[in-house]
Amino acid sequence: MADSNNKLGYVVGVDLGGTKILAGLFDSVLGLRGTAKITTKPQRGPGAVLERVARCVRDAVDEADLTMDQLRAVGLGVPGTVDPALGQVIFAPNLGWREVALKEPLEQLLGVPVWVENDCNVAVLGVQAAELKNKPRSVLGVFIGTGIGGGFILNGELYSGAAHTAGEVGHMVLQMNGPKCGCGGRGCFEALASRTAMVQRIKTAVNGGEKTVLTEILPDLERLRSGDLRKAFLRGDKLTKTVVEDAAGYTGLALANLANLLNPEAIVLGGGIIEALGEQMLGIILQTMKEHTMPGAMTGVEVRVSTLGDHAAITGGAALAMRLTQ
Amino acid sequence: MADSNNKLGYVVGVDLGGTKILAGLFDSVLGLRGTAKITTKPQRGPGAVLERVARCVRDAVDEADLTMDQLRAVGLGVPGTVDPALGQVIFAPNLGWREVALKEPLEQLLGVPVWVENDCNVAVLGVQAAELKNKPRSVLGVFIGTGIGGGFILNGELYSGAAHTAGEVGHMVLQMNGPKCGCGGRGCFEALASRTAMVQRIKTAVNGGEKTVLTEILPDLERLRSGDLRKAFLRGDKLTKTVVEDAAGYTGLALANLANLLNPEAIVLGGGIIEALGEQMLGIILQTMKEHTMPGAMTGVEVRVSTLGDHAAITGGAALAMRLTQ
Repeated sequence: MADSNNKLGYVVGVDLGGTKILAGLFDSVLGLRGTAKITTKPQRGPGAVLERVARCVRDAVDEADLTMDQLRAVGLGVPGTVDPALGQVIFAPNLGWREVALKEPLEQLLGVPVWVENDCNVAVLGVQAAELKNKPRSVLGVFIGTGIGGGFILNGELYSGAAHTAGEVGHMVLQMNGPKCGCGGRGCFEALASRTAMVQRIKTAVNGGEKTVLTEILPDLERLRSGDLRKAFLRGDKLTKTVVEDAAGYTGLALANLANLLNPEAIVLGGGIIEALGEQMLGIILQTMKEHTMPGAMTGVEVRVSTLGDHAAITGGAALAMRLTQ
Repeated sequence: MADSNNKLGYVVGVDLGGTKILAGLFDSVLGLRGTAKITTKPQRGPGAVLERVARCVRDAVDEADLTMDQLRAVGLGVPGTVDPALGQVIFAPNLGWREVALKEPLEQLLGVPVWVENDCNVAVLGVQAAELKNKPRSVLGVFIGTGIGGGFILNGELYSGAAHTAGEVGHMVLQMNGPKCGCGGRGCFEALASRTAMVQRIKTAVNGGEKTVLTEILPDLERLRSGDLRKAFLRGDKLTKTVVEDAAGYTGLALANLANLLNPEAIVLGGGIIEALGEQMLGIILQTMKEHTMPGAMTGVEVRVSTLGDHAAITGGAALAMRLTQ
């Protein structure tokens, strides 16, 4: 009995990133039973990457001591614009992909239904399903790491707009004529508060002669990771503290703009920077939000650091697969 | 036959503003048959204002050569936070109202069902119904006048958020530490591109010795209206041109942020400034949007100046009344 129930329930969620693929096998109550991780190797081209995705799915199934015939469906999050109805990537700059079919070739490789979505969209679905128990009707997810992305659940549904590009919170301009952004613009949220922006500011300060323990932790600042920033922050490094606290202020301002526009029930923060420093940043984020939101826009709004960490996207992929494969 | 059809179809839309009340009687295909306008006189208190709303509704019915027993329902737009389910205003600063019941007392005064909503929300409903023929699933309305407000239709439904405060586009911060805003913040869209912001900038320039035909058109700059700005612009006034073009640039940036976040099918502009200068501003607005939107976010997006002018809210009130009174 238990077996037949579980056979109906097992799904795999996949987080396809620019450098690594993470897959997780989940049971019918979104319990994680096993994971697998391999490198993406996008330079080998889409066909090879899809084979690696399929391998990673099989590895996660095996890791959970199950077999492929017990798998019901797969949900995949991709860093880029995705057309879920066509099952293809429209544009994924980190992978170098334009108009790449995913659903059909993966279904052929795996023999089960495959659903695809933007990675921030699946991450917010994961938070909504596993962390918020599907209660709020409107949830904004904001993910701060190398870049900054977002996903919205509005009126109870994933909202991705007319051409599937909605949720680009990272390129909301907060500071006209501010620092240059990778998108070509200036003063975008991502150019102010992403890890890339923080590292850039630290490098400039160090080149200007400022002292920081970061140069002891990691001589090549270009390779700074969120965990290194956390270490330096906890050791009381002054430069790191200033840079992290400023990023928290920018984040609070961005979230205030979003709360004024969308008045959600919950705002959830995730991504590498938030995993490493979310607790340290949350006070300033909330204070800045309070200062910049309209009366009522923050009433009853829950702002939280996701507890799913880097499992948000695989959890959301699993939730998507479960929802769509009835 | 025609009469019995029409009896089912007649509705009144009301735009309740801080200074005036406008009511319009519409037939079943949203054709405007008659309007009435009176001052609001908010200083007399909510009870007196509601009696004036009822009088204005009766005047619009009479203006269309109809009688009250031919009226099916009324839809009312209010400048503030509205709880449509409870039929009350939560907060309307321009009227000085907090928690004022509207639906029930108006139904008693008028003897027909009354529906209430935020004024920008009904305005975007009006544009969607009468101008866009209910086609797009996602429409953003941005209304630029004394202040700046917005209304969103997302996934085919009016979106007003968890506490009915969504759509506050005017207080999106575009310029950290920019000019002061009436909300207490700095660098909000409203503090950069509303008529109030434009007049402020003109006054500062004139005090600094700059010449402008505006001082000939209207010696008391405090009372400048959108039409005066239009006159000065068309007469080639340099200061006015600079101020209007800068406001168009800020508007383009705000709309780019919104397009990146929400990727709508249509963005509609309205309000006093847009009625007066929309055509003059649209080129710069579109150019700035192009420069600041992500790939794909503008594909197929229609950006237009609403043709409804100051009839947007009464049309939307009528559409709301028709939709909810089946």
